[in-house]
Amino acid sequence: CPCPLPRGDCSLSRLLRRLLSARRSLEICLFAFSSPQLGRAVQLLHRRGVRVRVVTDAQYMGLQGSQIGLLRHAGIQVRHDQENGYMHHKFAIVDRRMLITGSLNWTTQAIQTNRENVLVVEDAEYVKPFLDEFERIWEEYNPIHYRFF
Amino acid sequence: CPCPLPRGDCSLSRLLRRLLSARRSLEICLFAFSSPQLGRAVQLLHRRGVRVRVVTDAQYMGLQGSQIGLLRHAGIQVRHDQENGYMHHKFAIVDRRMLITGSLNWTTQAIQTNRENVLVVEDAEYVKPFLDEFERIWEEYNPIHYRFF
Repeated sequence: CPCPLPRGDCSLSRLLRRLLSARRSLEICLFAFSSPQLGRAVQLLHRRGVRVRVVTDAQYMGLQGSQIGLLRHAGIQVRHDQENGYMHHKFAIVDRRMLITGSLNWTTQAIQTNRENVLVVEDAEYVKPFLDEFERIWEEYNPIHYRFF
Repeated sequence: CPCPLPRGDCSLSRLLRRLLSARRSLEICLFAFSSPQLGRAVQLLHRRGVRVRVVTDAQYMGLQGSQIGLLRHAGIQVRHDQENGYMHHKFAIVDRRMLITGSLNWTTQAIQTNRENVLVVEDAEYVKPFLDEFERIWEEYNPIHYRFF
């Protein structure tokens, strides 16, 4: 279903449905994550035993309304960049087989008022490079590599 | 070739090569467009007789470094939103058959320093919804619909 996302709740519920189909793993790689509904869905998956890992952008994660602190508080693993550039990806991978990617950050403004697109792809040739990129970033942003001084 | 874009010039030259393969038409739908190299490529295609159409975001297009004024000056058709939300897409369609989409805005910062992805897709089932979205936006942003007061 490679469908540009029309605005409004219908699209949010489609996105929620795809996420909530996760049974084993969910990788999330998002520049901005502030949607409370999507935050609650991710916490629910974590409580159900799905292995959730989140990568996000350091500059954005501290802004008011960010869900990142709540996810960490719930015990979900989160890693962030330590760079000047943005970690600008906006994708998620469900059970290592479904890629959800596009222009959409997971924010209420983006969902309700922006013009955005979301692609949902299950072909392995598309999913694999994003899985590889996630694992590369996950290692690169391992806290053992953080510089504090 | 669904490959997350590694940083640096290598990716820029790959993107340029795909764009410059256009023979008949190029639709561009971009939140932010400030890369001089990509701006020059688009102008070159216009001079070669390729039908170029650009849709962009009203808030971003007036910022310093935006290529939009230069494109208009060169005679390229540009339309923009008149909304509070962002026109946040980042895609282009070459000859109505190749879709280039992802997280990447066409800015020097994004190309050189951000972590970004670009998907290049030629399957009609993926290209068609983006073509339809472009035509929908193109009509919606027709200047005859602009409100000035």
